[in-house]
Formats: sequence, C-alpha cells, structure tokens
Amino acid sequence: MQIHAYAAHQAKDKLAPWDYQKPDLKPNDVEVKISHCGICHSDIHLIDDDWKMSRFPLVPGHEVVGTVTQTGSAVTLLKSGDRVGIGWQSGSCGTCEWCLSGQDNMCSKAQPTCVGRHGGFADSIITSERFAFKLPDNLESENAAPLLCAGVTVFSPYRLYQVKEGMKVAVLGIGGLGHLAVQFANKLGFETTAISGSPDKATEAKDLGAHHFLLNSDPAELKSKANSFDFILTTVSASLDWMPYMNMLRPNGKLCFVGATGGNITVPTGLLLGRQKSICGSNIGGVKVMNEMLEFAAKHQVVAKTEVMPMNQVNDAIEKVRHNQARYRMVLETGDK
Amino acid sequence: MQIHAYAAHQAKDKLAPWDYQKPDLKPNDVEVKISHCGICHSDIHLIDDDWKMSRFPLVPGHEVVGTVTQTGSAVTLLKSGDRVGIGWQSGSCGTCEWCLSGQDNMCSKAQPTCVGRHGGFADSIITSERFAFKLPDNLESENAAPLLCAGVTVFSPYRLYQVKEGMKVAVLGIGGLGHLAVQFANKLGFETTAISGSPDKATEAKDLGAHHFLLNSDPAELKSKANSFDFILTTVSASLDWMPYMNMLRPNGKLCFVGATGGNITVPTGLLLGRQKSICGSNIGGVKVMNEMLEFAAKHQVVAKTEVMPMNQVNDAIEKVRHNQARYRMVLETGDK
Repeated sequence: MQIHAYAAHQAKDKLAPWDYQKPDLKPNDVEVKISHCGICHSDIHLIDDDWKMSRFPLVPGHEVVGTVTQTGSAVTLLKSGDRVGIGWQSGSCGTCEWCLSGQDNMCSKAQPTCVGRHGGFADSIITSERFAFKLPDNLESENAAPLLCAGVTVFSPYRLYQVKEGMKVAVLGIGGLGHLAVQFANKLGFETTAISGSPDKATEAKDLGAHHFLLNSDPAELKSKANSFDFILTTVSASLDWMPYMNMLRPNGKLCFVGATGGNITVPTGLLLGRQKSICGSNIGGVKVMNEMLEFAAKHQVVAKTEVMPMNQVNDAIEKVRHNQARYRMVLETGDK
Repeated sequence: MQIHAYAAHQAKDKLAPWDYQKPDLKPNDVEVKISHCGICHSDIHLIDDDWKMSRFPLVPGHEVVGTVTQTGSAVTLLKSGDRVGIGWQSGSCGTCEWCLSGQDNMCSKAQPTCVGRHGGFADSIITSERFAFKLPDNLESENAAPLLCAGVTVFSPYRLYQVKEGMKVAVLGIGGLGHLAVQFANKLGFETTAISGSPDKATEAKDLGAHHFLLNSDPAELKSKANSFDFILTTVSASLDWMPYMNMLRPNGKLCFVGATGGNITVPTGLLLGRQKSICGSNIGGVKVMNEMLEFAAKHQVVAKTEVMPMNQVNDAIEKVRHNQARYRMVLETGDK
C-alpha cells in the first residue's frame, strides 16, 4: 500500500506529488486518514533546510487532522473512526522523567513529525497513539488543525510560566501564532495587549480579544509602555532590539520566546536582578498541556482563522505563507472527511 | 542626642568616626541599639559610589543586629528589648500591590538603609518597624547579622523561582553569599553542587553541605556537566562567559543572578526556546520571605561563618573584604549587647 504525499526532494524545492510505501503499524501505532493539514512557518524552514536537520525527500505538515482508520495490536487510547490531531512531535522515549510527567516535548529523544518520518501533506499518516490527540467534537477540523502546533506553542507558555488571571500580557506579532495567543490570553482572563508593526492589524487584534493595541514601529509608543507587562510572548521570527521589551516588563515580568528568531538577546544582568525580570522560552508543548489546550479551545471556541485550499494547490499555499499573506493560517484539505 | 557612626565623606574614602543628630522617631519607627553589623560587598560599592547613587557623608552597614530601645507611638510589631535585624531595605510605600503582598523589595519607592539615611556602622539606628525583623532566639547575633542581606538574597530566589526538593542546584561562587546559598540548598533538600575557581574551597564547600564540587577554572569540567542542573544561582560579581552555564542547565532550567556583575549576558534565543531555559534575577527579598528565611535558618541552623572585629577597626575589616580575605563574612561588633 502506498501513501500519496507531497514532498520536497532537495532544499528549497517546490513540492511534488510523491508516493511512499506505507510502513507497517507497530503495536502502538495508528493510521490516520488525513482531512486537513495547516502550514506552519516551521514547514518552510524544513523545506529550506534552515535548521540543517531536514532529510529528503521531505513531506512537510505537522498540523494534521484526520480520522483513525486502523489501530496497532496494543492501542488502547483510540479506535477506528476517532477524529484526531497530530502536531510537531510524533515520538519520544516514553520512559524518561519528562515523558512520565507529560512533558514529552523535553524528552531528549523527542522525534519531530516531519524529520525521519513523513508529515501531513499526504492522504494518510502513521503515528503513535500517544501523539494522536482526540479532538473535542465542537472544534471544526479546518480551524482546529493549527491548534496542533501554533495553538499549543502559544498556550503552553502561559501554563509553564504560571501566567495568572488578571495579569498584564502582551503578544508580540499577530500572525499564525499570535492570533491564537491573543485569543487564549483573553479567554484566560489576562489583560491583553497585541503588539504589531502593522497598523492595519489593530482592529483585527481587538476582534480577536486584545484589550489594547501597540504599534512597535513607533519607539516612542514602546517607551511610553515601560513597566507595563507581566508577560510578553514574542511570536515573531525577526531578531529585534529587545531592550524596549525588557523595559516594558513590570517587576517579576518575563519575556518569553516562542518564535525562532535565529538571533541572540543581550541584556545587562543588572536589569534581570534589579526588577527580578526573566528571559525564557517555550517549545511546543507536552502531551499533558496539549490535551488541556484542546479542551480549553473547545470550551472557549478558540480557533484559528484559516484560509483553506485544496492540498493539490500546496505550492500556491506555501507561497502565501512565504509572503506573509496568510490571514492567519493556511490550511490544506484533502477532500476526505 | 547624637548617634556615633563611621562615615565616608567622599567616594572611596576611609571611614572616620562621625556623629549625627538622632532623627525624631516617626509613629512607626523604632530605635535600635546596635550590637553587630556585617560588611557586605554592596557597602564597598556604596563607599566607592560605583552605582552613582551614594550620598555623603555615607554611613554603610545593612546587616544590622541590635536591640529595640525605643518605639514610636504607633508601633505594634515590636517592643523595647526585642532583638531585631535590619537588612538592605528600610522603607517602601506600604500601599502598592508589591508592598501589600509582602514583596516590598519590588516597590518602586523602596528605600535602601544606607542611601538617604544612615546605616549600621554606628551605635544606633532608627528605622520603620516594618523593616526591623524580630530574630528567633536560637540564632547568635554575630552569625545572624549576614542573614539580613546575604541570607535573604540567596534564600529568596529559591522561593521566587519555585526550586523544589530533589532538584539539582548549583551555587556559583563560594563567598559571603554562596556559603549561605549552599547551606540553604542542602537544608531545602536540593542536590547541591558548589562551583568555584578556588580548589581550596572544595572541602569547605562540602562541610557547608555541598554534595558535589566543580572547579570552574577548568572548561572541560564545566563541559562534562552539560544538562546537569535545574537551577544555577550565580553569586559572583565577575562578568563571565555564561554559555557554559547555560549549557549546564537541564530542560526548564534557570540561570539566576543575585551577584551584581555590571556586565551583560548574551544568549541565542533558540537556546532559551529549545530546552525552555530561563535567565533571571532576584533582588534581596521582601518582608514575607525575610521572615520565612529567618525561621528556616533558626530551625536548620543555617548561619554565616563570620570573622568578628570591633567596630572601631572598621577600615581594617573593609580591607579584608576588598581583598576577598573574609571567610566568609566580616562582622563588626560594638561591644553593646
């Protein structure tokens, strides 16, 4: 049996239809027939081999939604017909302290969905039942797909760093990650500020739940917000001058990176000490927070705003992501339900 | 009435006997007859005006122990005869969110003991009852004095950053701060590693409660400890290459500054993101954690190792601190009990 996929055969390639032999199901594996798959900036990084970890042919896609069609002999969590989602991670050792505490994302043997195995730009995928998450019924597949990577990436740091109701939170960058971060922040009861360089995002940000909007192309505006935020979540991939953001933190405030900037941050240690500020990061999310995020999203109807395209137009969709034209997430659909 | 003190009259001065008019007690003030006062590196920074905040004549001393001799009309927490300690901070607004949650050290109007008022190198001191902490009976004054600044400075970050029993903690720098940090770490149930550039501190560090000792003058030794610590508390005042320390952190690990290095730290944001590492700082401690620290120290007999000298030899004692000859804290005594 073949899986019909779209693959890059070398770095920066356009994707092309490509079939590969369906692997045998291991005892804890499930086969999932894919209905939708979001396009994440990380897919572009993998296609371009920016992180020097890609293996070709490469089938991108790690915001997968589909239906279980087959289960391995030892599967207990899922059954055929279950609608599930699959994110960035598809494997871990299962026995280390991180795996045993639901923080599989910190396992030293964590395996990405699209490196060393094939991702969700395809009609099917095989994965471990531990990394196929049952989706609550009241989440639409096309809007839920981006929750599997973008969603958990921005929800997890709020939990990891114990951001509490009533705290003042800023989300820097209102794109695929940021537009979900703002929604979660609002529903979690944070006083939410959206920060963007695009004035045209002010209205949309408020529609998403931002109480305030800040234009970061204006240094004076940033300066006026010194000592304003308990938590700044930065979702951008650009390397900025981070000092204005450090100065916008209140005592005990944290600047948290979830966007891969590729750059450095330099701060005076005295600034960290004096007002007890932190610089930190968060990397997707473990099994525990993934399930919590999905339940929370379903309950509060936090869903991605998506533009859906047929999977056979994958290259056009990728171009839109490359040119930041997605509002806010491109999602491919196979036509299968 | 005069207070007999030792003061610097300009930056980098030797201290000289100096009397000043005793201020009137405000309703919430207490007068404390001083028996002991530790010498902290911050006193040297103030004398030298390194932080451009000193006001002369300057009476240093913010690890004060003494006995209440007079109380203002509204004092309720203390009475004459109580033995108390006074640390770095002697004032705050009392009404902001930080003051109201026992985190007075984060109050924007926090007032240091030795700037704009006069410190503990003297026979008496006037301070607010809120910043004179009753000392548990079973702490000896000469060994308790350094707890008021050094002690709370290293105990507070363990609480602030929720370092838990069983975690792997390293203390960088085994001096006035570090020798207390190691003791607290051991008694709090952390697996404790002392890191120092002085091989001769290995035995002493283990006597203080360190389970392991690491020589940071050997890059290979640091490298061999990659992925080893949940929390590294850095008490040194030198600006180091921090990357080896970042690499020694485990997932979710934190590098915490309590020593004022005056320098910067530069790290790739990807390092923070990938393994969810943090860089943070902690600044003395608020009223809440000060009281907790004192109780904990008394219960577990965490006390400073001190060398006691008469207060009239203050300049000789300061020279020992300047030349890092204190093992581990110089404490001045007035002869009053």
